[in-house]
Amino acid sequence: MSLEEVITEIQPLDTAVMQSARERQAQLTKPAGSLGRLEELSIQLAGITGKPIPFIKNKVIITMAGDHGVVAEGISAYPQEVTPQMVLNFLAGGAAINVLARHIGARVVVVDMGVANDIPTTDERLIRRRVSAGTKNLAQGPAMTRAQAEESIQSGIEIALAEISTGADIIGTGDMGIGNTTPSAAIACVFLNHHPKNVAGRGTGVDDEGLNRKISAIERGLAVNKPNANDGMDVLMKVGGFEIGGLAGVMIGAASKRVPVMVDGFISTAAAMIAVSLAPGCRDYLISAHRSKEHGHSLMLDCLGLKPLLDLDMRLGEGTGAALGISMADAACKILSEMATFGEAGVSNKE
Amino acid sequence: MSLEEVITEIQPLDTAVMQSARERQAQLTKPAGSLGRLEELSIQLAGITGKPIPFIKNKVIITMAGDHGVVAEGISAYPQEVTPQMVLNFLAGGAAINVLARHIGARVVVVDMGVANDIPTTDERLIRRRVSAGTKNLAQGPAMTRAQAEESIQSGIEIALAEISTGADIIGTGDMGIGNTTPSAAIACVFLNHHPKNVAGRGTGVDDEGLNRKISAIERGLAVNKPNANDGMDVLMKVGGFEIGGLAGVMIGAASKRVPVMVDGFISTAAAMIAVSLAPGCRDYLISAHRSKEHGHSLMLDCLGLKPLLDLDMRLGEGTGAALGISMADAACKILSEMATFGEAGVSNKE
Repeated sequence: MSLEEVITEIQPLDTAVMQSARERQAQLTKPAGSLGRLEELSIQLAGITGKPIPFIKNKVIITMAGDHGVVAEGISAYPQEVTPQMVLNFLAGGAAINVLARHIGARVVVVDMGVANDIPTTDERLIRRRVSAGTKNLAQGPAMTRAQAEESIQSGIEIALAEISTGADIIGTGDMGIGNTTPSAAIACVFLNHHPKNVAGRGTGVDDEGLNRKISAIERGLAVNKPNANDGMDVLMKVGGFEIGGLAGVMIGAASKRVPVMVDGFISTAAAMIAVSLAPGCRDYLISAHRSKEHGHSLMLDCLGLKPLLDLDMRLGEGTGAALGISMADAACKILSEMATFGEAGVSNKE
Repeated sequence: MSLEEVITEIQPLDTAVMQSARERQAQLTKPAGSLGRLEELSIQLAGITGKPIPFIKNKVIITMAGDHGVVAEGISAYPQEVTPQMVLNFLAGGAAINVLARHIGARVVVVDMGVANDIPTTDERLIRRRVSAGTKNLAQGPAMTRAQAEESIQSGIEIALAEISTGADIIGTGDMGIGNTTPSAAIACVFLNHHPKNVAGRGTGVDDEGLNRKISAIERGLAVNKPNANDGMDVLMKVGGFEIGGLAGVMIGAASKRVPVMVDGFISTAAAMIAVSLAPGCRDYLISAHRSKEHGHSLMLDCLGLKPLLDLDMRLGEGTGAALGISMADAACKILSEMATFGEAGVSNKE
């Protein structure tokens, strides 16, 4: 199915079902509204899924890896070899996302969207969708071709649809890619129309000089590429990344099938900006898991109209925030499905 | 064991073990500090338990119920009969705390600390520690006698020690009691030296007139009782509640056995103020689960030097926030125990 066809499949949330969920919340044995964000979330999940009592049984976190030519500018504290090393760590189950996914009962789907170096494994769980061996240096020209941008989005859609066809009822997004806070900040600058110094942060932990190099690289990238804020595909190709495009595709694909997406932190939110630019209707299917400690994330969330569930000073990526957020979504659904009503429990309602 | 003896058992956190946990965090395959609050929490849990790699296997939430004579002042939106009705709901498994406890794999221990009306059940899981049939009206005089205050604390200690002796390795606190935001706000006013209008909130949802009656009741209670801010037992007896004293006892008892306490919202934090007043050393064993939407809670947390993990606009009590917080503590422990180190995974560290 073409991107345009998938986008036309995205429907508005089901407001009748949301009203039904809202009415049920008011009948459960607690003061109305006293579970705050959990109640709101349960109502959103009802509207997304079209089920007045939604449930989350099959949790999937899709963690996409890619490399970035802009590392040549000295914008990361870690060497590029870490990207494939961490992919192997994901497959071995030793990374933070594996631990947190096990904690919440989710499966991690690992995708090579464009890692520069070879990933030395025969593990068939690794989904190989490498668009190219890393992007080109966005500070000097387009990060990728338009065809590559389209391919990354298409791969994300196909991976999401495949997971949904085998039962996924919520998808968390995750990323791995040395240097990928730089393209993410660049994407945010385009859509926010902000200077890089207001958006770029320290990523995995660059020092002041590294941060200055990062800001400079984004400045030059925006000047040389002139991305068009009204064309998400143009922004992705000029200053984006393969894993970022892939995650945008995951969001669009999930929304087309009424499956909620738990959006991780800074990189996933940049992907959300691309996804919403291409398919505005997918926004209501997105739930922001947490506020990243990365500078600029709050501006991006405000721009998208998303309010994060958690604020734990996390800035790791991989889908770690999404995992914790999915647990909250699961709790929200269980409140709606498992709590007794005033009538059932014989509890007096408000006087 | 007397209260004084239990208090002398409370030791400082184990700083050597905390250093060991901190060093392990720095070796795990992630940028240092990138899991934010989860890392801090894992280090605190190491210091509490004295284990460099702490674990949480046996989760218990102790939900204590009590009634309050101050309801005569028209300070609650719900009738007092709801307290025993909700106790039955807890035992039947239909309340929010049951749902969230199941979600995180915790057991709920339900205690009658002083419900006014009979609780019509033969369910032996209900722990009956009723100090009296509800407190007296704090707006007119002391809520209880000093002996009753001491009894409530003692009961809490004994219940905590009993749970710990059968394996509990984290305890969440929870409350149920129509009207109990009023004594909680009164306790906070004493320790904060603030006027009730800066502390009292809408509880389960009183209107403006109800809120004014609540503020007035606290004002009169403070004027007639003159609680001594330097004597936690005096504050508890004059403007407290039986479940609040019980929860303070739980905190002191758990701290004496190096067991972490996940403190729920507004009422539990008032209990924490009593506990810390009686036993300052127990403070480091307390973890604030969430910021309640109830007015004044942030002032109380600041006074105690506690930073809440979650901020989800919740204001239900019962231990619902504590349940979600315990899940975070569990995740924090698993990060420390299950993640691979850079060496184990063959991942390059920061350049």
